[in-house]
Amino acid sequence: MSGWVRIAGLGPGADGMVTPEVSGALNAATDVVGYTPYVARVCPRPGLSLHPSDNRAELDRARHALRMAAEGRRVVVVSSGDPGVFAMAAALFEALETGPKPWRDLDIRVLPGITAMLAAAARAGAPLGHDFCTINLSDNLKPQALIEKRLRLAAEGDFAIALYNPRSQARPEGFARALDILRETCGDDRPVIFARNVSHPDETIRVVPLSEAKAEMADMRTVVLIGSAQTRIIPHRAGPIVYTPRSAPV
Amino acid sequence: MSGWVRIAGLGPGADGMVTPEVSGALNAATDVVGYTPYVARVCPRPGLSLHPSDNRAELDRARHALRMAAEGRRVVVVSSGDPGVFAMAAALFEALETGPKPWRDLDIRVLPGITAMLAAAARAGAPLGHDFCTINLSDNLKPQALIEKRLRLAAEGDFAIALYNPRSQARPEGFARALDILRETCGDDRPVIFARNVSHPDETIRVVPLSEAKAEMADMRTVVLIGSAQTRIIPHRAGPIVYTPRSAPV
Repeated sequence: MSGWVRIAGLGPGADGMVTPEVSGALNAATDVVGYTPYVARVCPRPGLSLHPSDNRAELDRARHALRMAAEGRRVVVVSSGDPGVFAMAAALFEALETGPKPWRDLDIRVLPGITAMLAAAARAGAPLGHDFCTINLSDNLKPQALIEKRLRLAAEGDFAIALYNPRSQARPEGFARALDILRETCGDDRPVIFARNVSHPDETIRVVPLSEAKAEMADMRTVVLIGSAQTRIIPHRAGPIVYTPRSAPV
Repeated sequence: MSGWVRIAGLGPGADGMVTPEVSGALNAATDVVGYTPYVARVCPRPGLSLHPSDNRAELDRARHALRMAAEGRRVVVVSSGDPGVFAMAAALFEALETGPKPWRDLDIRVLPGITAMLAAAARAGAPLGHDFCTINLSDNLKPQALIEKRLRLAAEGDFAIALYNPRSQARPEGFARALDILRETCGDDRPVIFARNVSHPDETIRVVPLSEAKAEMADMRTVVLIGSAQTRIIPHRAGPIVYTPRSAPV
């Protein structure tokens, strides 16, 4: 029996958004590693070892997974959403690149999942129905100046924008600054969607014009979507539908 | 019994990437509408009417779905990938906004799916592991000048880039132009991934430096991913792993 690693996306939360491919990998695994709340979403069973770990321990967790696979174990590294979007896939490949050469012979695959921005967009309508940019507002691993530059360019290009990790207690001011930057270019009326805990029982979707968007409306469980200049709102009994048309004017 | 519409993403092709939520909607449906090759992916069964239609008939198809739901039918509009990314969700909401007012009382939901760029990224490694832009190169519904502006801004911001609909017989020159624009800013070494028919039996993943990327390497079944300046390649027995680290230098 030879070991393997699967880096799997659990989607935003609901079981109905976990792909059969990911469920199959979890059924075949001997070990699951990941951030504690994500590992808690995996059903325990005999023969399956769960290895929860803290946030910000991504590289250690990745090395642990690779070491176990090298010992012949079948390891699933779980992420929320999609593992390739601000999640464990990049961390695992960083660990692979800097780790022992024999790790490169391992059978490693990424299994995609429903990422937060697309789950949020589906709940709100189709705000990302045209060209869009996806930006991680966390400045843990990149300079704030780069974040601000990208926000300005995204606004200048009239992209719709998805913001991950808008706000943490460690840096409450970054998201307020981001909103200010967007207001400079996008004006007051641009629809902003605050989607929190999408697909969980306490999901909330809030749509406000950019002029009324406040940093306090987001936390680390929120993904924020900002429309383009073309984005429209349709009143609907279940809440406003926000969508960006497929066409852009000449 | 009251009607409804579900706008559902079938993912890139493999059954293992269809979410249980989408499968459940198809099992509960009375009618499925969509572009012919996507409707062909739905299992026929007694009581289910399939309504395949041509490409570029998106608005007619959307109106057909809404009309049937208003008559009490349970209608699934199928898209490949995710319905919110260059697919049927925006078309359906365009039809809703311009259609009869009673349609706004309908029960309408978007069910997300695995979109092509994330399936392709998973196969290649984690090229979209940091900030990225998603651009539809089709100029059917937007001016070529806007496409070029967005490409320039995305490159200037050092985003990774995902390109949908890179090339059709109707406009073979647009993608060649896009590659030229990217070469101006990104230089020759930037990794480019041509991912064709991801998750289908004839899937191909090809990684070349930007200097060697040619328009002929893509067709309408290809999604093209371009790395950022930080993107790295790890040699691996199953083909090169392309990933963009989580951190950006100060």
